[in-house]
Amino acid sequence: MNIGIDMMGGDFAPLEAVKGLHLYLENNVHAPAAFFCIGQEDKVLPLLQEYGLDKHPAIRFIPAPEVIGYHEHPTKALKEKQQSSIAIGFHLLATGKTDAFISAGNTGAMLVGTLYSIKALPGIQRPTIATLVPKLDGSNGILLDVGLNTDCKPENLNQFAVLGSLYASNILGVSNPAVALLNVGEEEGKGNLLAQAAYPLLKENADINFTGNVEGRDVFTGKADVIVCDGFTGNVILKMAESIYDIARQRNLHNDDYLHRFHYENYGGTPVLGVAKPVIIGHGISNGKAFQNMLKLAIKMIESDLCGQIKEKYKD
Amino acid sequence: MNIGIDMMGGDFAPLEAVKGLHLYLENNVHAPAAFFCIGQEDKVLPLLQEYGLDKHPAIRFIPAPEVIGYHEHPTKALKEKQQSSIAIGFHLLATGKTDAFISAGNTGAMLVGTLYSIKALPGIQRPTIATLVPKLDGSNGILLDVGLNTDCKPENLNQFAVLGSLYASNILGVSNPAVALLNVGEEEGKGNLLAQAAYPLLKENADINFTGNVEGRDVFTGKADVIVCDGFTGNVILKMAESIYDIARQRNLHNDDYLHRFHYENYGGTPVLGVAKPVIIGHGISNGKAFQNMLKLAIKMIESDLCGQIKEKYKD
Repeated sequence: MNIGIDMMGGDFAPLEAVKGLHLYLENNVHAPAAFFCIGQEDKVLPLLQEYGLDKHPAIRFIPAPEVIGYHEHPTKALKEKQQSSIAIGFHLLATGKTDAFISAGNTGAMLVGTLYSIKALPGIQRPTIATLVPKLDGSNGILLDVGLNTDCKPENLNQFAVLGSLYASNILGVSNPAVALLNVGEEEGKGNLLAQAAYPLLKENADINFTGNVEGRDVFTGKADVIVCDGFTGNVILKMAESIYDIARQRNLHNDDYLHRFHYENYGGTPVLGVAKPVIIGHGISNGKAFQNMLKLAIKMIESDLCGQIKEKYKD
Repeated sequence: MNIGIDMMGGDFAPLEAVKGLHLYLENNVHAPAAFFCIGQEDKVLPLLQEYGLDKHPAIRFIPAPEVIGYHEHPTKALKEKQQSSIAIGFHLLATGKTDAFISAGNTGAMLVGTLYSIKALPGIQRPTIATLVPKLDGSNGILLDVGLNTDCKPENLNQFAVLGSLYASNILGVSNPAVALLNVGEEEGKGNLLAQAAYPLLKENADINFTGNVEGRDVFTGKADVIVCDGFTGNVILKMAESIYDIARQRNLHNDDYLHRFHYENYGGTPVLGVAKPVIIGHGISNGKAFQNMLKLAIKMIESDLCGQIKEKYKD
């Protein structure tokens, strides 16, 4: 398998991407994948050399003279900078030269690139992005959507539930994952119009193990393996969860085993679900460990053929 | 001033309400208020005696033979149990015998009672409930709506901003409070349809100091004194914030000065804003300290004439 990596994405590019590759290859001597490192030659090659990766059999350098900055308009930048690492990354993925694409660069450009060049799978109304939530019992849950779909219809939430279930069973290794609807109360009938209408769809969905509503207090307690919500609420939760680690650090509590798990580097990246191939979008501040975790996630997504399984589920 | 207290509300009723009164009167020898203690004679009087409050000049016992339980249907229970502590509490408030009403009982019954017997002030589209959010700088912000209005219109959010501002300046003592819209990004134009439509209303509202959008990560950092959002998102945040204290306790980190501030007892109760008189709804697990804080809040709301100020603002 071949994994494309945008070496120019992230606040510390390309250094942290190189560090991530180095970490990964140090821990996995027989790497199951080849890594296509896409970026500016004068910036990336010296670092690959410095880390002894320039002649590594698993590494292949792909020159990309342009870079899409953080504040550029996604659609405009992708159109005008066809020689950028993100545009080339999507070209390689769309043409089958790579099997997954990873970037910690401009999130908007990554989403636009995913939706326009990789595209939603047939039957998928709305691709979605998800985040892991650290549960007190030591395992992880998944929350979706976390921002791609700020306004949702009930059937979108119902589909997120299936995508999240497949992710939880294939990537997190949870068998028969418990799926819950985020809501303001536990009883059926509670909620805003969206949640009230989504509940019966989820209840009747034979493809998932729906366990009912969960409230804000249950997000971290482990009541559910998959929690579905609209992307507005999910994005607020995602960012609140990230701030928990920042608060812990400020209060000097970040070495607590549980609070430490809120550190973004442990998740590495946000997978886009419901599209034809694995795309993982990293945090702008991604460090080497985060990149390593994105590489691991990409490999897991390819090995489990998560996209193929989603495709199979919606083929009719 | 006279404050009505539902002695029968809360998981530990009437003991914790009595403890709260005892705490308050111990710390405020010259209480500025008289307390109307509403509840079942055989349960409340012996406890008032035990705590030496039965002959206290600030205490007046009001018998209420019935109790509305936690799981009773609010409207039905209020209608059928007119001799309940909640029904009598609202009767006293509506007829001017008391100036505020406090209960840690059935939240639904408290809300129904507030809306039907105290009523929204003229010009108020939707009364709202708010919660305090502990900010890292030591001060508190206010977040609203936290669950009374799970589906909102842009103009509702605009009005919550005014109610929240008046609360922050009158009750929290913040001058010219910074008001923010909870959103998925900082730039104008971000958000779901509701947030996109609310932004320009807030921007043009001369009654508030609108400072733009804040994201989930900013809720606790102190970027804003007043954060407005729909009641679905706000309720999820409220309950997540409550769970932060529970997590801290489980991890034995609850003695941290900041994390300790997430303990519900420090806030005591949720004020209903936009109605004609102060109503404060307490957490079901309210302890003595929580009741004491509800009493303090009721007195502050009466002394500052917050309801009168809101009425004045919307009189045209």
